[in-house]
Amino acid sequence: MSLRKLTFVTGNVNKLREMQELLHGIVDLHNTPVDLEEIQGSTQEVAIAKCRQAAAIIGGPVITEDVGLGFNAMNGLPGAYIKWFLKELKPAGLYKMLHGFEDKSGFAVCTVAYCAGPNHEPILFEGIHHGTIVEPRGPPVFGWNPVFQPDGHNETYAEMSDELKNKCSHRFLAVEKLKAFLSEQQ
Amino acid sequence: MSLRKLTFVTGNVNKLREMQELLHGIVDLHNTPVDLEEIQGSTQEVAIAKCRQAAAIIGGPVITEDVGLGFNAMNGLPGAYIKWFLKELKPAGLYKMLHGFEDKSGFAVCTVAYCAGPNHEPILFEGIHHGTIVEPRGPPVFGWNPVFQPDGHNETYAEMSDELKNKCSHRFLAVEKLKAFLSEQQ
Repeated sequence: MSLRKLTFVTGNVNKLREMQELLHGIVDLHNTPVDLEEIQGSTQEVAIAKCRQAAAIIGGPVITEDVGLGFNAMNGLPGAYIKWFLKELKPAGLYKMLHGFEDKSGFAVCTVAYCAGPNHEPILFEGIHHGTIVEPRGPPVFGWNPVFQPDGHNETYAEMSDELKNKCSHRFLAVEKLKAFLSEQQ
Repeated sequence: MSLRKLTFVTGNVNKLREMQELLHGIVDLHNTPVDLEEIQGSTQEVAIAKCRQAAAIIGGPVITEDVGLGFNAMNGLPGAYIKWFLKELKPAGLYKMLHGFEDKSGFAVCTVAYCAGPNHEPILFEGIHHGTIVEPRGPPVFGWNPVFQPDGHNETYAEMSDELKNKCSHRFLAVEKLKAFLSEQQ
């Protein structure tokens, strides 16, 4: 039986490889890098608009993926805007943003969106990992990982082994939901 | 001589009235409220995308207007995202965001965009007012006005009389540039 094709719209080769491994045997995952506009809004609104746009451009079933980091003291902001703040402030500056607030809790959110094709409504698969925003610890290799310490762990994402992180991350939780959905559809 | 028509795409009746007064005798300013998507990006990128979209929907010449508030300690952020932070944090929370940063300077920016019609490039008219982000002072009636004290003044925007504010504001500076441009075109 040949698996049905699904396009992952991402410019990130590592994300593609990881997603291909996770969805192995379920779908035939291809990649098309397309420049997608990101709207302002909640992480859900941003993901829906982006996935809808991707399906319209590709003309078939697609998945997209977005990550955000929310601070509870800011009611979930920066959220979908985290990449802009990370770019300008680096991890140390993200932590500094909370200096005046007592509540240092936050959450990492991964939103995988699936859209069956043009004019279909995207379906969201969210993985949320609650934790604390801390002073940066661990190698500053990947994004805001040094400032996020998930609940139930003593390490930040940056201090964790890939193996441990992959098993507990916001991303893993979202992809697990997508896997269940795609498996049911077969 | 009849003035040429121009559409101001805004849902804000007060802004329309004010703009009509400012452009009196130069253009015949109408209003059409249209829901426009705002993209993520710099204040310029957001304004260009929005005005282009407005011209495509209206099918003729349009102006749009955006305001932002940037913190220099954050390299200009929240900038175009200020409305989301204001909504969640209120003016007092905006000031709190800078608690961990020594540099409290910032700037108010108004971006008026003009687009001649569908498939034309929008032209931007920016008014920037430099100042300081302070603890909220003055009536909390309008947006982030209580936390912005422009350079050369002892009052925040919220503490100023309308007359004074209108003569020195980021908005006034942007509209003056638009006026000069439209007058030349006649």
